[in-house]
Amino acid sequence: MTQASICTIGDEILIGQIVDTNSSMISRALEAIGIKVTRMLSFGDDHDEIISNLTNELEHNQIVITTGGLGPTKDDITKAALAELSCSAYNVVNEVQLRIIHEILGARGLDVLDINEAQAQVPDTCDVIPNRLGTAPIMVFRFPEERFGHPATLYSLPGVPFEAQGAVPDIIEDIRSHTPLTDIFHKCVMVAGMAESALSKLIAPWEDNLPSDMHLAYLPNQLTGVRLRLSIYGGNKEDEEKRIDDQFALLAPILGDKIYSFQDDTLQNAIGSIFRGSGMTLSAAESCTGGMISSLLTSVPGASEYYLGSVTSYAIAVKQHVLDVSPETIGFYGVVSQEVAAAMAEGVRKLTGSTYSVATTGLAGPGGDGRNEVGTVWIGISGPNGTKTVRKVYKNDRTRNIERFTSAALDELRLFVIEDLRKSK
Amino acid sequence: MTQASICTIGDEILIGQIVDTNSSMISRALEAIGIKVTRMLSFGDDHDEIISNLTNELEHNQIVITTGGLGPTKDDITKAALAELSCSAYNVVNEVQLRIIHEILGARGLDVLDINEAQAQVPDTCDVIPNRLGTAPIMVFRFPEERFGHPATLYSLPGVPFEAQGAVPDIIEDIRSHTPLTDIFHKCVMVAGMAESALSKLIAPWEDNLPSDMHLAYLPNQLTGVRLRLSIYGGNKEDEEKRIDDQFALLAPILGDKIYSFQDDTLQNAIGSIFRGSGMTLSAAESCTGGMISSLLTSVPGASEYYLGSVTSYAIAVKQHVLDVSPETIGFYGVVSQEVAAAMAEGVRKLTGSTYSVATTGLAGPGGDGRNEVGTVWIGISGPNGTKTVRKVYKNDRTRNIERFTSAALDELRLFVIEDLRKSK
Repeated sequence: MTQASICTIGDEILIGQIVDTNSSMISRALEAIGIKVTRMLSFGDDHDEIISNLTNELEHNQIVITTGGLGPTKDDITKAALAELSCSAYNVVNEVQLRIIHEILGARGLDVLDINEAQAQVPDTCDVIPNRLGTAPIMVFRFPEERFGHPATLYSLPGVPFEAQGAVPDIIEDIRSHTPLTDIFHKCVMVAGMAESALSKLIAPWEDNLPSDMHLAYLPNQLTGVRLRLSIYGGNKEDEEKRIDDQFALLAPILGDKIYSFQDDTLQNAIGSIFRGSGMTLSAAESCTGGMISSLLTSVPGASEYYLGSVTSYAIAVKQHVLDVSPETIGFYGVVSQEVAAAMAEGVRKLTGSTYSVATTGLAGPGGDGRNEVGTVWIGISGPNGTKTVRKVYKNDRTRNIERFTSAALDELRLFVIEDLRKSK
Repeated sequence: MTQASICTIGDEILIGQIVDTNSSMISRALEAIGIKVTRMLSFGDDHDEIISNLTNELEHNQIVITTGGLGPTKDDITKAALAELSCSAYNVVNEVQLRIIHEILGARGLDVLDINEAQAQVPDTCDVIPNRLGTAPIMVFRFPEERFGHPATLYSLPGVPFEAQGAVPDIIEDIRSHTPLTDIFHKCVMVAGMAESALSKLIAPWEDNLPSDMHLAYLPNQLTGVRLRLSIYGGNKEDEEKRIDDQFALLAPILGDKIYSFQDDTLQNAIGSIFRGSGMTLSAAESCTGGMISSLLTSVPGASEYYLGSVTSYAIAVKQHVLDVSPETIGFYGVVSQEVAAAMAEGVRKLTGSTYSVATTGLAGPGGDGRNEVGTVWIGISGPNGTKTVRKVYKNDRTRNIERFTSAALDELRLFVIEDLRKSK
C-alpha cells in the first residue's frame, strides 16, 4: 500500500499560533484514493531542519506532501532547501504563475513588487502546478528510485488553507496518474440531531451485521452532525457502490429523518435542496446566534432564489420595533423564552413575507440572565401551518454554544418543513 | 535552550477524522515558559511505531509530550510501548486514579468494568499525575542522561482536548520544578488593510534596523489582517518587553491607523474596544456578507452593550421595505452600487437608532449581475457626521470573497469611527 507523510513547515504552527487544519484535509483526500498516511509532522522555517526532516520522510514514504513555508516574505528558505534537496542548479521563472501573480495583485489594485514576482521562480528540477488561488506555485519534485530506495514524490503546497485545499484535486490527479493505487470506495450518510455515542448504540445491530470487508467510520462535526462513512478497499466501482447502497438502505428505516443526505453534505445545503425550485421562501430572526444562521444559509451558491434575509435582533428594541415582539411578552416571559422565540419567528416571517422562518433566542455565555441555564436556546420555526418551538441546552463555551444553537436551528427548520410537505401530499 | 517535541498518538488524527488542537494548545503553554518546540508529530496506534518515533524524539529533545493513545478500548498498546521504552517490569495500580475512575463513572450512572479499572494501572517506572477530568492517568517518565545523551522527560497525556488542557498546568509546573529554563518574550501588533507583501516593503527599513536578537514574524489571516510578532529569547521580562515596545513605537508612525491593536487581537474586538463604555451603538445591514459581519461582531463577549443588531437584506424587497432603500435607487444604480450601500447603511441606522452602521452590497460569486465584476463589494458606513462608501474588488471563490468583504467592512467601520472621534476632540 502506498504510504504518505504530510508535513507542515513554519514556526507559526510550532509555536501554536495557528492550528493546522491542512494536514487533516489532505489526509482525508489521500485516504479517499487508498493511500495510507503514516505520519504527520510540523517543523520550523529553518534550512537544515527542512532538509533533514524531508529526507527522513522521503526515505520512509513514497509520497510526501508539505504545506507552508512559502509566501512573499519567507519562501527563500523553503525554496533554497528544496533546491538543495533536489540538487537543483538554479531557479527558473514559471510564466503561468507569473501571469497569475499579476492578475491577483492587479485585481486587488496592488503593485507587483519584486518579492511578488520572485514567487514565480522555482528550482529547475521541479514540475509546477499553477496555483490559481494565490501567488505561490505548487512544486512537484520527483525523485528516482536510487535516491531513497524507492520512487518518491514531494509536493510542496502553500500554507494558506484555502489555497492548499484548492491544490488538492490537482495533487490527487497527479498522484493517480503516476502511482498504481488500490481503489477504495466510500459513500456517506449525514445524520443530524444525535450525539455520536447515542447514534452508535442505536445502529449497533446494523453495524454488527456489516460485511467484513466494509469499514464504518463516524466523522462528527459541530455544525453538520455525524457523517457515517462506509469504505471498501479494492473491487469494481459499480458493484461495490451498489453493495454500500444496499447497506445504507437497511440503515435508512432505523434512522428515518435523522438522515438528511446520502452524500457528504451540510444542513444548509440540505435546506437549499428542499427550497430550491419549490417556490417557497425563507427568512431568519437571530438573537444569540448573532448572524451565523444567515451566514450559513447564504454560503450556499444560489441561496438568493429562496432566502429573503434576516434580522439579528441583539437589542430588545430591535426585537420590539423591527420584529414586532410585544413588550409584554418580553417582560412577562423574558427574552430567552418559548414565547419570544415564537414571536420572533412570526415577526420576521411577516416582515419579509417568507413562507417559512427560523428564530433563535438563548444564552451563549459567558454571562447568564439569572433565569435560564447558560447554554439554553429556544428555537422558533414558523410556516403556513403554524409555529413550533424547541428548547435545547448545551454545555460548551460561547463559540461552541453558538455553533450548536445554529446547527440545531437549521435541523429543526429542516424537520418542520419536510413534515409539512409530507402532510400536504 | 530547552527543546520539546509534541506527539499525538492515534489513527483518528492520521486519517483526518479529527483536527489536532491539543498540540497548538500545549505549544503555546511551553512557549510561554521559554521552551522551544522543535517538532510536532502524529503517528498511529502501533507498538513499533510508538517506540521508534518516541525514541527518536527523546534523542533530539529534553521534553517529549504525547497526547492520545489512551482510553479503555485502546490503551494496552500505548502503555505496553511506554513500559518497554522505559524498561518497566510490571504495572502498578495508581489508587488515586482508581478512585477518580469510580467517581466519574458513578456520576454518569455507569458500571465500572474491568477495562475501566485497568486504566489505573501504569508502568512502575513512571510518576503519575492524577487526571481529575477523565479516567486515564497522566504518566511521567524520567530518563537519565545515559539513556539519550541528555536528561529527558516524557509526559503522556490523554487525547480528549478538555482533559489534555486540564493536564497542562500540572505538566508546566512539573517541568518548571525539574528544568532550568531560558525565558522567551513576544509582543504583537495587528495590521489591517494591507497585503503581507506591501506591508513588508513599507516596513523594510524598520525591519532592517531591528536588533539582531529580535525575530520578526508575519502571520497573515484572512479575517484579522497581518499579525507582526517580535520575539526575544532570554533576558529579563521587563527589560526585553520594553525593548520590543520601543521598536513598536518606531513602527507606529510608519503604519498609523493601519495598526489596530498592540496585542494578539481581532477587528471585531478592536471595534468592541472603541464602542464599549462610549455610549455609542452599532448596527449592520448585510447583503453579500449574508450575516458574517453580525456573526463576528456578536462573537465578542459583552457585544450586547453596544451592538443593536442587523438586517440581512438578501431579497430586494427586504432592502426596500425593511431598510427603506428606494426602488428608484435600486433601479437606476443597480443593487451593487455606491448609492445602495449608502442607503442600506442609512436605512439600518435609522431603523435601529444606532450611532453608527455598516453595510455591504456586492457579488461574492459564482454568478454575476452583468454590470459589476464578480468579487466587487460596496461598503457603506454611516454615522452622525455623514455616510462614506468604499469599493473593493477581490478575486477569490465565494467563501473567501465573503470573508474578505467582511474583514474590509469591519476595518472601514473602525477607520471611520476613529476619524470621527479624532475630529470631535
